[in-house]
Amino acid sequence: MTDKIAITPATHTAPPAKFSHGVRKGNILQVAGQVGFRPASAGEEPVPAGPTLREQTLQTLANVRSVLEEGGATWEDVVMVRVYLTDPGSFEEFNRVYDEYFADLKGAPAARTTVYVGLPGDLLVEMDALAVLG
Amino acid sequence: MTDKIAITPATHTAPPAKFSHGVRKGNILQVAGQVGFRPASAGEEPVPAGPTLREQTLQTLANVRSVLEEGGATWEDVVMVRVYLTDPGSFEEFNRVYDEYFADLKGAPAARTTVYVGLPGDLLVEMDALAVLG
Amino acid sequence: MTDKIAITPATHTAPPAKFSHGVRKGNILQVAGQVGFRPASAGEEPVPAGPTLREQTLQTLANVRSVLEEGGATWEDVVMVRVYLTDPGSFEEFNRVYDEYFADLKGAPAARTTVYVGLPGDLLVEMDALAVLG
Repeated sequence: MTDKIAITPATHTAPPAKFSHGVRKGNILQVAGQVGFRPASAGEEPVPAGPTLREQTLQTLANVRSVLEEGGATWEDVVMVRVYLTDPGSFEEFNRVYDEYFADLKGAPAARTTVYVGLPGDLLVEMDALAVLG
Repeated sequence: MTDKIAITPATHTAPPAKFSHGVRKGNILQVAGQVGFRPASAGEEPVPAGPTLREQTLQTLANVRSVLEEGGATWEDVVMVRVYLTDPGSFEEFNRVYDEYFADLKGAPAARTTVYVGLPGDLLVEMDALAVLG
Repeated sequence: MTDKIAITPATHTAPPAKFSHGVRKGNILQVAGQVGFRPASAGEEPVPAGPTLREQTLQTLANVRSVLEEGGATWEDVVMVRVYLTDPGSFEEFNRVYDEYFADLKGAPAARTTVYVGLPGDLLVEMDALAVLG
């Protein structure tokens, strides 16, 4: 029996419902949907890193990375990133920030699917990730 | 060669196209997108459990569970739940029902991503799930 | 340490950002979101196979298959297909094309989730796939 472990980075507030920011079971690590909230402490209301796509994208990527690292993984282990944007016109701007962020990636970049959906409040981007370890 | 097995709970009508309600291959079990249709028999048109988000969410969770159990898994094995809602204003109500449903979960809750999309007819919610067994 | 390998079919142009058309790590193969672009050469602007859902769906399925095959897999290994359509009214037409395409599938059909989202330009459909090998 392989243990299923909840991953809760110190930078993250408690999830707003009965889910985990990340889960690891065996060699599979799944990062839950992350948005551009700044690191926050318990009791604080989470606040986006800023109003722009660039600020929110960089913070979202940092939040995904916090979950990966807390679970013993890195971006090099990620096989899939799902990207949810609210504005179909933001694809090129998003890609510029994404490419800049991953400029130093050594191995194969993860696969990716990008779709345009609704998100709550002023959020412009959400991302989740699947990593295979070992 | 690991067998890929289609999972078809007795509570489910045949899928409306060439896909399976769930698939298990090796230690991976993927539940297809489930909606709030009541259990139905072959030849019957599937009908939502009711017009409210609460009714449809509980039925959708029951349908996911049927697939998990038919495939030899439980909620404890699920690492990811994807939630598709039609109304961004329904996040808090959805979370209340979700938390209530999972009140007795013993292990780590699954990761989750929630986005707002279009769904056919009067459907308010769709969910799928990824489980890692063993 | 299991290698993570980028999958780049000869039929595909370079991705528009730092992601891979597909990734294989261990027994997991993830196909990135594919759309109905015709095979293209480097330097050419990718062009959809046509304006209709049928043309784009068949091309998208061909593109997913190219990635699977380049990664050493077939449709028989796929456990999950995610379908993104732009028009909720296109579900039945999409299913007809999907069923026709998979008429000769021997094993269990993959699980599937279908949702309705925004896509760029004149794209009507996007699909990605998760395969488990071995």
